[in-house]
This record gives sequence, structure tokens and C-alpha cells, in this order.
Amino acid sequence: MKIVITGGAGFLGRKLAARLTKQGFLWDRTGKKTGITGLVLADVAAVDPPIEGATAVVGDIADPHFMAGLIGEDVDTVFHLAAVVSGQAEAEFDVGMRVNLDATRALIERLRSLGTRPRLIFSSTLAVYGNTGGGISPSTPVTPLSSYGTQKAMNELLIGDMTRKGFIDGRSLRLPTVVIRPGKPNLAASSFASSILREPLSGERTACPVAKDLRVLIISPRRVIDAFVHTCELPAETFAGRGPVNLPGLSLTVGDMVEGLERAGGDSSLIEWTPDANIQRIVDTWPGTSDTRDAEDLGYLAETGIDDLIAAYLEDERRE
Amino acid sequence: MKIVITGGAGFLGRKLAARLTKQGFLWDRTGKKTGITGLVLADVAAVDPPIEGATAVVGDIADPHFMAGLIGEDVDTVFHLAAVVSGQAEAEFDVGMRVNLDATRALIERLRSLGTRPRLIFSSTLAVYGNTGGGISPSTPVTPLSSYGTQKAMNELLIGDMTRKGFIDGRSLRLPTVVIRPGKPNLAASSFASSILREPLSGERTACPVAKDLRVLIISPRRVIDAFVHTCELPAETFAGRGPVNLPGLSLTVGDMVEGLERAGGDSSLIEWTPDANIQRIVDTWPGTSDTRDAEDLGYLAETGIDDLIAAYLEDERRE
Repeated sequence: MKIVITGGAGFLGRKLAARLTKQGFLWDRTGKKTGITGLVLADVAAVDPPIEGATAVVGDIADPHFMAGLIGEDVDTVFHLAAVVSGQAEAEFDVGMRVNLDATRALIERLRSLGTRPRLIFSSTLAVYGNTGGGISPSTPVTPLSSYGTQKAMNELLIGDMTRKGFIDGRSLRLPTVVIRPGKPNLAASSFASSILREPLSGERTACPVAKDLRVLIISPRRVIDAFVHTCELPAETFAGRGPVNLPGLSLTVGDMVEGLERAGGDSSLIEWTPDANIQRIVDTWPGTSDTRDAEDLGYLAETGIDDLIAAYLEDERRE
Repeated sequence: MKIVITGGAGFLGRKLAARLTKQGFLWDRTGKKTGITGLVLADVAAVDPPIEGATAVVGDIADPHFMAGLIGEDVDTVFHLAAVVSGQAEAEFDVGMRVNLDATRALIERLRSLGTRPRLIFSSTLAVYGNTGGGISPSTPVTPLSSYGTQKAMNELLIGDMTRKGFIDGRSLRLPTVVIRPGKPNLAASSFASSILREPLSGERTACPVAKDLRVLIISPRRVIDAFVHTCELPAETFAGRGPVNLPGLSLTVGDMVEGLERAGGDSSLIEWTPDANIQRIVDTWPGTSDTRDAEDLGYLAETGIDDLIAAYLEDERRE
């Protein structure tokens, strides 16, 4: 079985690749454990450090020539993680449209052209919801209030229809905010959610642009990777008959997260509270709670708590 | 004020053009009644018969050259009615994508490029809903089960985001099945809903592919035109702060429609009941009832009943 990960140089792409190379197999579309014979990580940047057992290719999936070379006839499964993040998609509308919408469509069309109904696991987002008044469930209407959320929602619709038509075997997962992202802050409006834990855990100062009582929905990198892999265990019929899966997350206030930081030995006085009305306005439209019993019934794992989430981060990032 | 109607040779496009030329004015974006100085009907076919006071141009809005010529800097308002209907969009997926999705996006991008934030009234459809279990309201999630509904839903999202960004002043209306369409049956799965009234009213035979107890949501051409025009009376803020408007319709069973036919003097024995499992399967996913109190609060008019709907058809089509 040959697998491609777009956005393969990103932190989730690398973690997924590491999991897959370690595991060595994946469930094929008939439910059989099948050995992984090839794993290709595609990204605009090099995979650094390289991952043993995976081949990295550098290019732009919005480029049809690169896409044609990337997705050969032997590709069975694609994890589509490549995207321009929310802050950049908002600031540079046309870049977001090109990467988040057009490249995804080109990928789906390429997969369709193979005629083998390949599997596409699509990394979507809870940012498809906006101004829900706090809580969501799978029956909450999609009303994005960002270009990022709009582009992801459009992709979900297209993937759903192409799957219904039998062109591909598409499976969309909506991710809560992933915490703790390693590395540096990025252009996502949600960047603070990692920074307020990550920086103090390293003894560094950080600024928090939102209020302590803001309720956020977060998911750990481990649970995201679990979900990507578990999605391949489920039969195609599970996804053909339903919309995207809202992945379970932790519903916490920013204050709850800071208390977790302190219990883990982090110094919360390193957080400078510098309200940013623009960011607060964006995050206020995000859902703070999510009813995901349907996802749990499908076998997607819930988080156990902020303490475990922080402990897993320390374990994973010290190991890397 | 210069106005463009895409799909201007279609029966709704022609009716809208006739209304606008008769009315002579439209509300501009500041709420002022403004004289119509130009009305252009764009379509792949000629407008037949021509409409006095309107200019017809023949071309494909998916062609960028045609689009650039069609939408000049002086265009203030576009009614976007052009579309490949549901049956064809299902049978010819790529044609549907090109006309329903790509051409709409090209139109929006062209409007955006003018820098004047032009007004775009988009003709969407209740086919964005699928398998809702019968009833819908504005808070029902969008889950299309047709390529036509998918493409329209994607457009709604894009128009919503481009409006939020201030690129255009977009306003989307979701139409129930329009009944009675004049002329011949078309490739829409809903074609029967007009045929079972229109053909017997002309003393002609017709086949009905669905069961008598199927509940459908229908809207008269007059109410659609009322809605298009009324949409221009509403301030931009009304649409910037909300999603598409589900237009009020009549919720009737096919049997109710046949009883209306008989009351209007039509001979219902001209209807041959020839069940078609494919069409029945499609229409079974459509909503049969719709809570549209929010639309009525915005001033969109409800239907008065099947008898008035048939009487209006006879009056309008005899006059033309």
C-alpha cells in the first residue's frame, strides 16, 4: 500500500509519518491490515529532520505538474494536511483560495482520474462553525466566519459529493485547535493556545491576546494522529453515509489551561496578558463545547485531560 | 443603475427582466429608488421573444473573455440565475462543476475586481438540503445529496465569505421547486412537479414518476420574481449578518396538487402514474416542509395556495 501525506513537513504530517513507519501497516479499504510499501511526504518545505522509511518530495500541490508526479496510479491513500493557516488565509485571501481550495480540488480530481477510488483523509477544522453561541453538535449548521473555515467547508462539500459519486473514498475530520504545537508561534489566530503552555514550559515569556474566561476546544497531537489512523480502520460506508466527523476535544477555559500549566511546574507569571481585540473577536466566534458522542461511538478517542495533554507533550518533544 | 441577469433567456430570467423593465427602477444599495439605465440579459441562448428595454447578449459566462465584456465597471447589480439543472449536473458532473461552480466563482471574482462592491443576487436552491427527515428550518444543516445541491452550497459559502470580506454585496436565496414552469419538461428531477399540472391544463397527457403521497415544497414564478426584487429593497446588513434566505413555499403532496388541477378544470386522468425508482429516490431526500418565518419577517411573501398558483399561471401564460 502506497501512502501520500500532503503537508508532510508540517508537525502533524511528520508525526503521522513517524507513526505509520513505526506501525508498518494500515487497514486497506476492505478492512485488511496491509503492509505499507511506500510513504511519500509532500510539502513546499523539506522534511526536517528526515523520517526514516519515508520519501520527502518538495513542491507545490497547486502545481498540476507536481501533482501528477506525486499521485501515481499506485497511490492508495492520501492524508491531505497541506493548508494555509487561518491568519494567512484571512490576510491573503487569494493565497488561501489557491492552496486551500484549488489545490484540494486538483488533488481530488487527480485521485478521481486514477479510476481506483483512492482513499482521501481530509484534515478539516471546527473553524467551519462560526457564532454558534458556544456549543456545537454534528447537527449544527456550518456558518464559517473566516476564509479558512469557508475554504475547508467548501472542500468538505466537494469531497462528500465526489465520494457519493464513487469517484473517491473521502473521509473528512474536523479538528479542534491542536495543542501543544511544538516550535514557534504561527499565523493562526489560535496560536496563543499553544504558546501559553509551550513557552512557559521552556522558561520563556509569551503574550496572551485573549481573556482568561475564553472557552476553547483543544485536541492533542497524539489524539489527532490516533484519529487519522483510526479513520482508515473504518469501512468506507461509515463516511459515505454521513458528513464530516467532529473530533472529540477538551473544552477548557484559558484559565483552566493556565492551571494545568502550573500543576505541570510551569511558571504562569511568564504569560503577559495583552488583550488583542482583533484576535478576541475571531476566537469569540469559535465553539467552546462540542457534543461528539457520535464520533466516540465510531471509536474516536476522547482526551483524558489537560494534565495528560501536557505530560504527553513533554514526553514527545523531549524524545524528539 | 445598470443590471445584468445571467440565465436571462431562461423563463425566470425573462420574467424578471419583464418585471424590471415595467417597474423602471430598483432600490440601490443605499435604499434609494434608482432608475434602471441598462438591463442586460446574458445567456447561452438568444432571448426569445426579445424583451423591450433589455439588451440580450449570447455567450458562455464560463468564458473569461465573455465575462469581462459582460460585467463592465458600470454594473451595479447582477442577478445570477444561470445554472445547469439538477438532472444534467448529476449526469454530467464536469459540466455542472464548470457552469455551476467555476462560472459563479469567475463572476464573483469579476465583480470583486471592479472595486465597487457590486450587488449579487444569487439563485440557490433547497436542494442544498438532503435527507432531512422531511422538515427544514434556517438552522437545519446543509447536507446536499446531489451535485447540483453541492455546487450551489459551495457558491453560497463563497458568496458569504466574499461578502464578509467586503468584496461584493452578496445575497443568496434558496428557491423551492418552481411550479408551474412553462414550456417543455427539462432535465431537472423536479420536472414532474410542473408537468402534472401544465400538460393536463393544455389537454395533454403526462407521466408522473413519483407517488401521490410525496410531499413537495413549491413556489410560483410570481413569488420568485417578487423575492428577487424584494431582495434589493433590503439593506446589505440584512444579508451580511446571516446566511441564505429559504424562500417561503407551499408544502403539498402530489395528490394535493392533482386536486388543485381538478378544481381548475384540468383532467387528472391525463396523468399516467409510472413510478420511477431513480427519481423517487432523489425526491425522497428533499424537504417537504420549511419553517420560513424569518423570511416572512424580512418581507418575503408566502404563497396563498395551489388554486391561486394555478390561476396565476393561466393568467400569465395566456397573456404572453
